[in-house]
Amino acid sequence: MIKVIKVGGGIIEQEKSLTLFLNAFSKIEGPKVLVHGGGRLATKVADQLGHSTKMVEGRRVTDKNMLDVVTMVYGGLTNKKIVAALQAKGTNALGLSGADGNLILAHKRPVKTIDYGWVGDVDHVNSSLIINLIQENIVPVIAPLSHDGNANILNTNADTIASEVAKALAQKEDTQLILGFELDGVLKDINDKSSVIKKITPELFDALKLEGSISAGMIPKLTNAFDAINAGVSSVIICDALKVGENEGTLISA
Amino acid sequence: MIKVIKVGGGIIEQEKSLTLFLNAFSKIEGPKVLVHGGGRLATKVADQLGHSTKMVEGRRVTDKNMLDVVTMVYGGLTNKKIVAALQAKGTNALGLSGADGNLILAHKRPVKTIDYGWVGDVDHVNSSLIINLIQENIVPVIAPLSHDGNANILNTNADTIASEVAKALAQKEDTQLILGFELDGVLKDINDKSSVIKKITPELFDALKLEGSISAGMIPKLTNAFDAINAGVSSVIICDALKVGENEGTLISA
Repeated sequence: MIKVIKVGGGIIEQEKSLTLFLNAFSKIEGPKVLVHGGGRLATKVADQLGHSTKMVEGRRVTDKNMLDVVTMVYGGLTNKKIVAALQAKGTNALGLSGADGNLILAHKRPVKTIDYGWVGDVDHVNSSLIINLIQENIVPVIAPLSHDGNANILNTNADTIASEVAKALAQKEDTQLILGFELDGVLKDINDKSSVIKKITPELFDALKLEGSISAGMIPKLTNAFDAINAGVSSVIICDALKVGENEGTLISA
Repeated sequence: MIKVIKVGGGIIEQEKSLTLFLNAFSKIEGPKVLVHGGGRLATKVADQLGHSTKMVEGRRVTDKNMLDVVTMVYGGLTNKKIVAALQAKGTNALGLSGADGNLILAHKRPVKTIDYGWVGDVDHVNSSLIINLIQENIVPVIAPLSHDGNANILNTNADTIASEVAKALAQKEDTQLILGFELDGVLKDINDKSSVIKKITPELFDALKLEGSISAGMIPKLTNAFDAINAGVSSVIICDALKVGENEGTLISA
Protein backbone atom coordinates (compact mmCIF):
# COMPACT_ATOMS: atom_id res chain seq x y z
CA MET A 1 0.00 0.00 0.00
CA ILE A 2 1.20 3.51 -0.86
CA LYS A 3 0.69 6.07 1.90
CA VAL A 4 0.21 9.69 0.85
CA ILE A 5 0.89 11.85 3.88
CA LYS A 6 -0.02 15.51 3.98
CA VAL A 7 1.45 17.85 6.56
CA GLY A 8 0.24 21.40 6.98
CA GLY A 9 2.15 24.63 7.06
CA GLY A 10 1.47 25.09 10.78
CA ILE A 11 3.62 22.05 11.61
CA ILE A 12 6.48 22.68 9.22
CA GLU A 13 7.01 26.35 9.95
CA GLN A 14 8.16 25.57 13.51
CA GLU A 15 11.61 23.98 13.68
CA LYS A 16 10.61 21.77 16.64
CA SER A 17 7.34 20.40 15.27
CA LEU A 18 8.93 19.93 11.84
CA THR A 19 11.66 17.78 13.38
CA LEU A 20 9.15 15.72 15.35
CA PHE A 21 6.99 15.27 12.26
CA LEU A 22 9.95 14.23 10.10
CA ASN A 23 11.03 11.72 12.77
CA ALA A 24 7.55 10.18 12.67
CA PHE A 25 7.39 10.31 8.87
CA SER A 26 10.81 8.73 8.35
CA LYS A 27 9.76 5.75 10.49
CA ILE A 28 6.74 4.87 8.35
CA GLU A 29 7.51 1.64 6.53
CA GLY A 30 6.71 0.91 2.91
CA PRO A 31 6.10 3.19 -0.04
CA LYS A 32 5.19 6.73 0.92
CA VAL A 33 4.77 10.20 -0.49
CA LEU A 34 4.90 13.47 1.43
CA VAL A 35 2.86 16.52 0.45
CA HIS A 36 3.72 19.62 2.44
CA GLY A 37 1.84 22.84 2.86
CA GLY A 38 3.25 26.29 2.67
CA GLY A 39 2.44 28.19 5.77
CA ARG A 40 3.13 31.66 6.94
CA LEU A 41 6.78 31.76 5.88
CA ALA A 42 5.63 32.89 2.43
CA THR A 43 3.70 35.75 4.06
CA LYS A 44 6.78 36.72 6.08
CA VAL A 45 9.10 36.65 3.06
CA ALA A 46 6.54 38.55 0.97
CA ASP A 47 6.32 41.17 3.71
CA GLN A 48 10.10 41.54 3.81
CA LEU A 49 10.14 41.92 0.02
CA GLY A 50 7.48 44.60 0.26
CA HIS A 51 4.60 42.55 -1.19
CA SER A 52 1.38 42.55 0.81
CA THR A 53 -0.56 39.33 1.28
CA LYS A 54 -4.25 39.24 0.44
CA MET A 55 -6.39 36.37 1.70
CA VAL A 56 -9.95 35.66 0.59
CA GLU A 57 -11.91 32.98 2.44
CA GLY A 58 -8.72 31.51 3.87
CA ARG A 59 -7.02 31.28 0.49
CA ARG A 60 -4.05 33.32 -0.64
CA VAL A 61 -4.59 35.61 -3.60
CA THR A 62 -1.55 34.96 -5.78
CA ASP A 63 -0.43 37.88 -7.90
CA LYS A 64 2.82 37.66 -9.93
CA ASN A 65 4.97 38.82 -7.01
CA MET A 66 3.31 36.38 -4.64
CA LEU A 67 3.72 33.59 -7.19
CA ASP A 68 7.48 34.22 -7.20
CA VAL A 69 7.46 34.17 -3.40
CA VAL A 70 5.57 30.87 -3.08
CA THR A 71 7.75 29.34 -5.81
CA MET A 72 10.84 30.39 -3.85
CA VAL A 73 9.56 29.50 -0.41
CA TYR A 74 7.46 26.37 -1.00
CA GLY A 75 9.42 24.97 -3.96
CA GLY A 76 12.85 26.09 -2.75
CA LEU A 77 13.37 26.77 0.92
CA THR A 78 10.71 24.58 2.55
CA ASN A 79 10.93 21.69 0.11
CA LYS A 80 14.74 21.49 0.15
CA LYS A 81 14.93 21.84 3.94
CA ILE A 82 12.55 18.90 4.32
CA VAL A 83 14.44 16.85 1.71
CA ALA A 84 17.84 17.54 3.30
CA ALA A 85 16.47 16.69 6.76
CA LEU A 86 14.94 13.42 5.53
CA GLN A 87 18.19 12.50 3.76
CA ALA A 88 19.98 12.95 7.09
CA LYS A 89 17.52 10.43 8.59
CA GLY A 90 18.31 7.89 5.88
CA THR A 91 15.09 8.50 3.94
CA ASN A 92 15.86 8.94 0.25
CA ALA A 93 13.63 11.97 -0.31
CA LEU A 94 13.34 13.80 -3.63
CA GLY A 95 11.53 17.11 -3.85
CA LEU A 96 9.10 17.92 -6.62
CA SER A 97 6.88 20.77 -7.65
CA GLY A 98 3.99 20.08 -9.98
CA ALA A 99 6.11 21.24 -12.93
CA ASP A 100 8.85 18.68 -12.30
CA GLY A 101 8.39 15.68 -14.55
CA ASN A 102 4.99 17.17 -15.46
CA LEU A 103 3.76 15.87 -12.11
CA ILE A 104 0.68 18.04 -11.63
CA LEU A 105 -0.95 19.72 -14.59
CA ALA A 106 -3.51 22.37 -13.70
CA HIS A 107 -5.31 25.35 -15.14
CA LYS A 108 -5.49 28.87 -13.76
CA ARG A 109 -8.70 29.17 -11.81
CA PRO A 110 -11.29 31.09 -13.85
CA VAL A 111 -12.34 34.39 -12.34
CA LYS A 112 -15.92 34.30 -11.08
CA THR A 113 -16.65 36.61 -8.19
CA ILE A 114 -13.11 36.40 -6.83
CA ASP A 115 -9.85 36.60 -8.79
CA TYR A 116 -7.45 34.30 -6.94
CA GLY A 117 -4.68 35.12 -9.41
CA TRP A 118 -2.09 32.46 -10.22
CA VAL A 119 -3.91 29.64 -8.47
CA GLY A 120 -4.22 26.26 -10.14
CA ASP A 121 -7.09 23.78 -10.20
CA VAL A 122 -5.70 20.32 -10.85
CA ASP A 123 -6.45 18.53 -14.13
CA HIS A 124 -4.03 15.60 -14.09
CA VAL A 125 -1.49 13.90 -11.85
CA ASN A 126 1.37 11.96 -13.47
CA SER A 127 1.10 8.97 -11.14
CA SER A 128 3.58 6.95 -13.24
CA LEU A 129 6.37 9.30 -12.19
CA ILE A 130 5.55 8.76 -8.51
CA ILE A 131 5.33 5.00 -8.95
CA ASN A 132 8.65 4.92 -10.85
CA LEU A 133 10.36 6.89 -8.10
CA ILE A 134 8.86 4.67 -5.40
CA GLN A 135 10.15 1.61 -7.24
CA GLU A 136 13.64 3.12 -6.93
CA ASN A 137 13.07 3.43 -3.16
CA ILE A 138 12.74 7.18 -3.48
CA VAL A 139 10.28 9.13 -1.33
CA PRO A 140 8.68 11.96 -3.33
CA VAL A 141 8.25 15.18 -1.35
CA ILE A 142 5.73 17.37 -3.12
CA ALA A 143 5.43 21.14 -2.73
CA PRO A 144 1.98 22.75 -3.15
CA LEU A 145 2.71 24.04 -6.66
CA SER A 146 1.28 22.91 -9.99
CA HIS A 147 1.92 24.13 -13.54
CA ASP A 148 -0.24 24.90 -16.54
CA GLY A 149 1.92 23.46 -19.34
CA ASN A 150 2.41 26.98 -20.70
CA ALA A 151 5.47 27.80 -18.60
CA ASN A 152 3.49 29.07 -15.63
CA ILE A 153 3.81 27.74 -12.10
CA LEU A 154 0.50 27.85 -10.20
CA ASN A 155 -0.17 27.95 -6.47
CA THR A 156 -2.33 25.02 -5.35
CA ASN A 157 -3.66 24.13 -1.92
CA ALA A 158 -1.70 21.28 -0.30
CA ASP A 159 -4.85 19.39 0.81
CA THR A 160 -5.99 19.41 -2.81
CA ILE A 161 -2.60 18.22 -4.06
CA ALA A 162 -2.53 15.39 -1.50
CA SER A 163 -6.03 14.32 -2.36
CA GLU A 164 -5.46 14.46 -6.15
CA VAL A 165 -2.17 12.56 -5.83
CA ALA A 166 -3.85 9.87 -3.71
CA LYS A 167 -6.78 9.59 -6.14
CA ALA A 168 -4.43 9.22 -9.14
CA LEU A 169 -2.29 6.61 -7.37
CA ALA A 170 -5.43 4.72 -6.32
CA GLN A 171 -6.16 4.01 -9.99
CA LYS A 172 -3.01 1.85 -10.05
CA GLU A 173 -2.12 0.86 -6.49
CA ASP A 174 -3.78 0.40 -3.13
CA THR A 175 -3.48 3.90 -1.61
CA GLN A 176 -4.11 5.44 1.79
CA LEU A 177 -4.35 9.17 2.43
CA ILE A 178 -3.16 10.51 5.80
CA LEU A 179 -3.92 14.12 6.68
CA GLY A 180 -1.65 15.24 9.51
CA PHE A 181 -2.56 18.35 11.44
CA GLU A 182 -2.37 19.94 14.90
CA LEU A 183 -5.11 17.90 16.62
CA ASP A 184 -5.41 14.21 17.47
CA GLY A 185 -8.20 13.72 14.96
CA VAL A 186 -11.73 14.89 14.26
CA LEU A 187 -13.17 15.97 17.61
CA LYS A 188 -16.75 15.40 18.71
CA ASP A 189 -16.34 18.37 21.03
CA ILE A 190 -13.90 21.02 19.83
CA ASN A 191 -13.16 21.93 23.47
CA ASP A 192 -12.31 18.38 24.45
CA LYS A 193 -9.10 17.08 22.90
CA SER A 194 -9.90 13.55 24.06
CA SER A 195 -13.19 13.45 22.12
CA VAL A 196 -11.59 12.03 18.96
CA ILE A 197 -14.09 10.22 16.75
CA LYS A 198 -12.45 6.90 15.87
CA LYS A 199 -14.32 6.30 12.65
CA ILE A 200 -16.54 8.39 10.41
CA THR A 201 -18.80 6.80 7.83
CA PRO A 202 -20.86 8.81 5.32
CA GLU A 203 -23.93 8.25 7.51
CA LEU A 204 -22.18 9.50 10.65
CA PHE A 205 -20.80 12.50 8.73
CA ASP A 206 -24.33 13.46 7.68
CA ALA A 207 -25.58 13.05 11.24
CA LEU A 208 -22.70 15.13 12.69
CA LYS A 209 -23.36 17.91 10.19
CA LEU A 210 -27.06 17.92 11.10
CA GLU A 211 -26.23 18.00 14.82
CA GLY A 212 -23.82 20.87 14.17
CA SER A 213 -21.33 19.15 16.45
CA ILE A 214 -18.47 19.25 13.96
CA SER A 215 -16.36 22.39 13.50
CA ALA A 216 -16.81 24.40 10.31
CA GLY A 217 -13.13 24.03 9.39
CA MET A 218 -13.40 20.23 9.42
CA ILE A 219 -16.27 20.04 6.94
CA PRO A 220 -14.21 20.71 3.75
CA LYS A 221 -11.48 18.36 5.04
CA LEU A 222 -14.04 15.58 5.57
CA THR A 223 -15.80 16.31 2.29
CA ASN A 224 -12.43 16.00 0.50
CA ALA A 225 -11.73 12.79 2.39
CA PHE A 226 -15.00 11.21 1.23
CA ASP A 227 -14.32 12.44 -2.33
CA ALA A 228 -10.99 10.63 -2.20
CA ILE A 229 -12.66 7.45 -0.97
CA ASN A 230 -15.33 7.67 -3.66
CA ALA A 231 -12.50 8.01 -6.20
CA GLY A 232 -10.86 4.77 -5.09
CA VAL A 233 -8.60 5.69 -2.15
CA SER A 234 -8.82 2.77 0.33
CA SER A 235 -8.98 4.86 3.49
CA VAL A 236 -8.28 8.31 4.84
CA ILE A 237 -6.86 9.02 8.29
CA ILE A 238 -7.03 12.46 9.89
CA CYS A 239 -4.55 12.58 12.75
CA ASP A 240 -1.91 14.40 14.75
CA ALA A 241 0.92 15.10 12.30
CA LEU A 242 3.44 14.12 14.95
CA LYS A 243 1.85 10.64 15.16
CA VAL A 244 1.55 9.79 11.48
CA GLY A 245 2.12 6.11 10.99
CA GLU A 246 0.74 5.18 14.40
CA ASN A 247 -2.72 4.34 13.07
CA GLU A 248 -4.35 6.70 15.51
CA GLY A 249 -6.74 9.56 14.83
CA THR A 250 -9.96 9.44 12.86
CA LEU A 251 -10.48 6.82 10.18
CA ILE A 252 -12.70 7.87 7.30
CA SER A 253 -14.16 4.96 5.41
CA ALA A 254 -17.03 4.11 3.15
CA MET B 1 26.15 9.95 -25.47
CA ILE B 2 24.91 11.98 -22.48
CA LYS B 3 25.38 15.74 -22.81
CA VAL B 4 25.81 17.72 -19.60
CA ILE B 5 25.11 21.35 -20.42
CA LYS B 6 25.99 24.14 -18.04
CA VAL B 7 24.47 27.59 -18.41
CA GLY B 8 25.64 30.52 -16.35
CA GLY B 9 23.71 32.98 -14.24
CA GLY B 10 24.35 35.80 -16.72
CA ILE B 11 22.25 34.06 -19.36
CA ILE B 12 19.39 32.90 -17.17
CA GLU B 13 18.81 36.12 -15.28
CA GLN B 14 17.65 37.91 -18.45
CA GLU B 15 14.22 36.79 -19.66
CA LYS B 16 15.24 37.14 -23.31
CA SER B 17 18.53 35.25 -23.22
CA LEU B 18 16.95 32.59 -20.98
CA THR B 19 14.24 31.99 -23.57
CA LEU B 20 16.77 31.80 -26.40
CA PHE B 21 18.94 29.42 -24.40
CA LEU B 22 16.00 27.16 -23.51
CA ASN B 23 14.94 27.08 -27.17
CA ALA B 24 18.44 25.91 -28.12
CA PHE B 25 18.61 23.47 -25.19
CA SER B 26 15.22 21.90 -25.88
CA LYS B 27 16.28 21.13 -29.45
CA ILE B 28 19.33 19.09 -28.44
CA GLU B 29 18.59 15.45 -29.24
CA GLY B 30 19.42 12.51 -27.07
CA PRO B 31 20.00 12.23 -23.33
CA LYS B 32 20.89 15.52 -21.67
CA VAL B 33 21.27 17.16 -18.28
CA LEU B 34 21.10 20.86 -17.53
CA VAL B 35 23.11 22.50 -14.75
CA HIS B 36 22.20 26.12 -14.17
CA GLY B 37 24.06 28.82 -12.32
CA GLY B 38 22.58 31.25 -9.88
CA GLY B 39 23.36 34.74 -10.94
CA ARG B 40 22.64 38.09 -9.47
CA LEU B 41 18.99 37.43 -8.63
CA ALA B 42 20.14 35.97 -5.30
CA THR B 43 22.02 39.19 -4.60
CA LYS B 44 18.93 41.23 -5.46
CA VAL B 45 16.62 39.13 -3.27
CA ALA B 46 19.17 39.17 -0.43
CA ASP B 47 19.35 42.96 -0.71
CA GLN B 48 15.58 43.25 -0.56
CA LEU B 49 15.53 40.99 2.50
CA GLY B 50 18.18 43.19 4.13
CA HIS B 51 21.07 40.72 3.86
CA SER B 52 24.28 42.09 2.39
CA THR B 53 26.25 40.03 -0.11
CA LYS B 54 29.95 39.45 0.48
CA MET B 55 32.10 38.19 -2.37
CA VAL B 56 35.68 36.96 -2.00
CA GLU B 57 37.66 36.23 -5.17
CA GLY B 58 34.47 36.08 -7.22
CA ARG B 59 32.79 33.62 -4.87
CA ARG B 60 29.82 34.35 -2.70
CA VAL B 61 30.33 34.06 1.05
CA THR B 62 27.32 32.07 2.22
CA ASP B 63 26.18 32.81 5.76
CA LYS B 64 22.94 31.26 7.11
CA ASN B 65 20.77 34.04 5.70
CA MET B 66 22.45 33.84 2.30
CA LEU B 67 22.09 30.05 2.34
CA ASP B 68 18.32 30.48 2.75
CA VAL B 69 18.32 32.98 -0.12
CA VAL B 70 20.25 30.77 -2.55
CA THR B 71 18.10 27.77 -1.55
CA MET B 72 14.99 29.83 -2.33
CA VAL B 73 16.26 31.49 -5.47
CA TYR B 74 18.40 28.79 -7.12
CA GLY B 75 16.46 25.74 -5.85
CA GLY B 76 13.03 27.36 -6.02
CA LEU B 77 12.47 30.31 -8.31
CA THR B 78 15.15 29.81 -10.97
CA ASN B 79 14.97 26.02 -11.09
CA LYS B 80 11.17 25.86 -11.27
CA LYS B 81 10.94 28.65 -13.86
CA ILE B 82 13.37 26.74 -16.09
CA VAL B 83 11.51 23.46 -15.53
CA ALA B 84 8.08 24.99 -16.27
CA ALA B 85 9.46 26.70 -19.40
CA LEU B 86 11.02 23.45 -20.67
CA GLN B 87 7.80 21.55 -19.97
CA ALA B 88 5.98 24.09 -22.17
CA LYS B 89 8.46 23.25 -24.94
CA GLY B 90 7.72 19.53 -24.63
CA THR B 91 10.95 18.73 -22.77
CA ASN B 92 10.17 16.58 -19.74
CA ALA B 93 12.38 18.48 -17.28
CA LEU B 94 12.67 17.61 -13.60
CA GLY B 95 14.44 19.95 -11.22
CA LEU B 96 16.88 18.72 -8.60
CA SER B 97 19.06 20.18 -5.92
CA GLY B 98 21.98 18.14 -4.63
CA ALA B 99 19.86 17.01 -1.67
CA ASP B 100 17.13 15.49 -3.87
CA GLY B 101 17.64 11.76 -4.20
CA ASN B 102 21.03 12.30 -2.50
CA LEU B 103 22.26 13.60 -5.86
CA ILE B 104 25.32 15.57 -4.75
CA LEU B 105 26.93 14.86 -1.42
CA ALA B 106 29.45 17.46 -0.31
CA HIS B 107 31.22 18.72 2.79
CA LYS B 108 31.35 22.26 4.10
CA ARG B 109 34.56 23.84 2.88
CA PRO B 110 37.11 23.91 5.69
CA VAL B 111 38.13 27.39 6.80
CA LYS B 112 41.72 28.22 5.83
CA THR B 113 42.40 31.89 5.21
CA ILE B 114 38.85 32.59 4.04
CA ASP B 115 35.60 31.38 5.60
CA TYR B 116 33.23 30.88 2.67
CA GLY B 117 30.46 29.82 5.05
CA TRP B 118 27.91 27.25 3.86
CA VAL B 119 29.75 26.35 0.68
CA GLY B 120 30.11 22.72 -0.33
CA ASP B 121 33.01 20.89 -1.94
CA VAL B 122 31.65 17.86 -3.78
CA ASP B 123 32.44 14.34 -2.53
CA HIS B 124 30.06 12.17 -4.53
CA VAL B 125 27.51 12.37 -7.34
CA ASN B 126 24.70 9.80 -7.46
CA SER B 127 24.99 9.15 -11.19
CA SER B 128 22.55 6.22 -10.99
CA LEU B 129 19.72 8.63 -10.21
CA ILE B 130 20.53 10.70 -13.31
CA ILE B 131 20.80 7.62 -15.49
CA ASN B 132 17.49 6.24 -14.16
CA LEU B 133 15.74 9.54 -14.89
CA ILE B 134 17.25 9.71 -18.38
CA GLN B 135 16.01 6.19 -19.07
CA GLU B 136 12.49 7.47 -18.30
CA ASN B 137 13.04 10.25 -20.89
CA ILE B 138 13.34 12.81 -18.14
CA VAL B 139 15.76 15.73 -18.41
CA PRO B 140 17.35 16.50 -15.03
CA VAL B 141 17.74 20.23 -14.34
CA ILE B 142 20.24 20.71 -11.55
CA ALA B 143 20.48 23.77 -9.31
CA PRO B 144 23.91 24.73 -7.91
CA LEU B 145 23.19 23.34 -4.45
CA SER B 146 24.64 20.28 -2.73
CA HIS B 147 24.00 18.80 0.72
CA ASP B 148 26.17 17.38 3.49
CA GLY B 149 24.04 14.42 4.59
CA ASN B 150 23.51 16.11 7.95
CA ALA B 151 20.44 18.09 6.93
CA ASN B 152 22.39 21.05 5.56
CA ILE B 153 22.07 22.42 2.06
CA LEU B 154 25.37 23.81 0.75
CA ASN B 155 26.03 26.41 -1.95
CA THR B 156 28.22 24.99 -4.73
CA ASN B 157 29.55 26.64 -7.88
CA ALA B 158 27.61 25.58 -10.99
CA ASP B 159 30.77 24.96 -13.06
CA THR B 160 31.94 22.57 -10.35
CA ILE B 161 28.56 20.80 -10.24
CA ALA B 162 28.52 20.41 -14.03
CA SER B 163 32.03 19.08 -14.09
CA GLU B 164 31.47 16.64 -11.19
CA VAL B 165 28.20 15.41 -12.72
CA ALA B 166 29.91 14.84 -16.08
CA LYS B 167 32.85 13.05 -14.44
CA ALA B 168 30.52 10.75 -12.48
CA LEU B 169 28.38 9.95 -15.55
CA ALA B 170 31.55 9.29 -17.58
CA GLN B 171 32.30 6.30 -15.33
CA LYS B 172 29.18 4.62 -16.75
CA GLU B 173 28.28 6.26 -20.06
CA ASP B 174 29.94 8.21 -22.87
CA THR B 175 29.60 11.80 -21.65
CA GLN B 176 30.22 15.24 -23.14
CA LEU B 177 30.39 18.45 -21.09
CA ILE B 178 29.19 21.67 -22.73
CA LEU B 179 29.89 24.95 -20.97
CA GLY B 180 27.61 27.66 -22.33
CA PHE B 181 28.48 31.28 -21.66
CA GLU B 182 28.25 34.76 -23.20
CA LEU B 183 31.01 34.44 -25.83
CA ASP B 184 31.35 32.26 -28.92
CA GLY B 185 34.17 30.25 -27.39
CA VAL B 186 37.68 30.69 -26.04
CA LEU B 187 39.10 33.75 -27.79
CA LYS B 188 42.71 34.09 -28.97
CA ASP B 189 42.25 37.85 -28.74
CA ILE B 190 39.77 39.00 -26.07
CA ASN B 191 38.99 42.10 -28.18
CA ASP B 192 38.19 40.11 -31.29
CA LYS B 193 35.00 38.07 -31.03
CA SER B 194 35.83 36.21 -34.22
CA SER B 195 39.12 34.88 -32.84
CA VAL B 196 37.55 31.70 -31.43
CA ILE B 197 40.09 28.92 -30.98
CA LYS B 198 38.50 25.84 -32.56
CA LYS B 199 40.38 23.27 -30.57
CA ILE B 200 42.58 23.34 -27.50
CA THR B 201 44.86 20.44 -26.62
CA PRO B 202 46.90 20.29 -23.40
CA GLU B 203 49.96 21.37 -25.38
CA LEU B 204 48.21 24.39 -26.88
CA PHE B 205 46.78 25.31 -23.45
CA ASP B 206 50.31 25.35 -22.02
CA ALA B 207 51.55 27.45 -24.93
CA LEU B 208 48.64 29.91 -24.62
CA LYS B 209 49.27 30.32 -20.92
CA LEU B 210 52.97 30.99 -21.56
CA GLU B 211 52.14 33.52 -24.27
CA GLY B 212 49.67 35.19 -21.89
CA SER B 213 47.19 35.42 -24.75
CA ILE B 214 44.35 33.81 -22.85
CA SER B 215 42.20 35.80 -20.42
CA ALA B 216 42.63 35.16 -16.71
CA GLY B 217 38.97 34.24 -16.32
CA MET B 218 39.28 31.43 -18.86
CA ILE B 219 42.16 29.66 -17.12
CA PRO B 220 40.11 28.02 -14.32
CA LYS B 221 37.40 27.10 -16.87
CA LEU B 222 39.98 25.41 -19.10
CA THR B 223 41.75 23.78 -16.16
CA ASN B 224 38.39 22.31 -15.05
CA ALA B 225 37.73 21.19 -18.62
CA PHE B 226 41.02 19.28 -18.79
CA ASP B 227 40.34 17.80 -15.33
CA ALA B 228 37.03 16.50 -16.67
CA ILE B 229 38.74 14.97 -19.70
CA ASN B 230 41.41 13.38 -17.54
CA ALA B 231 38.59 11.89 -15.44
CA GLY B 232 36.97 10.22 -18.45
CA VAL B 233 34.70 12.84 -20.02
CA SER B 234 34.93 12.34 -23.80
CA SER B 235 35.08 16.01 -24.76
CA VAL B 236 34.33 19.46 -23.46
CA ILE B 237 32.89 22.27 -25.55
CA ILE B 238 33.01 25.91 -24.45
CA CYS B 239 30.52 27.88 -26.51
CA ASP B 240 27.85 30.54 -26.79
CA ALA B 241 25.02 29.39 -24.50
CA LEU B 242 22.50 30.40 -27.16
CA LYS B 243 24.12 27.98 -29.61
CA VAL B 244 24.46 24.86 -27.45
CA GLY B 245 23.91 21.81 -29.56
CA GLU B 246 25.30 23.42 -32.71
CA ASN B 247 28.78 21.93 -32.26
CA GLU B 248 30.38 25.35 -32.50
CA GLY B 249 32.74 27.03 -30.07
CA THR B 250 35.96 25.68 -28.65
CA LEU B 251 36.53 21.94 -28.40
CA ILE B 252 38.75 20.83 -25.54
CA SER B 253 40.22 17.41 -26.09
CA ALA B 254 43.12 15.30 -24.97
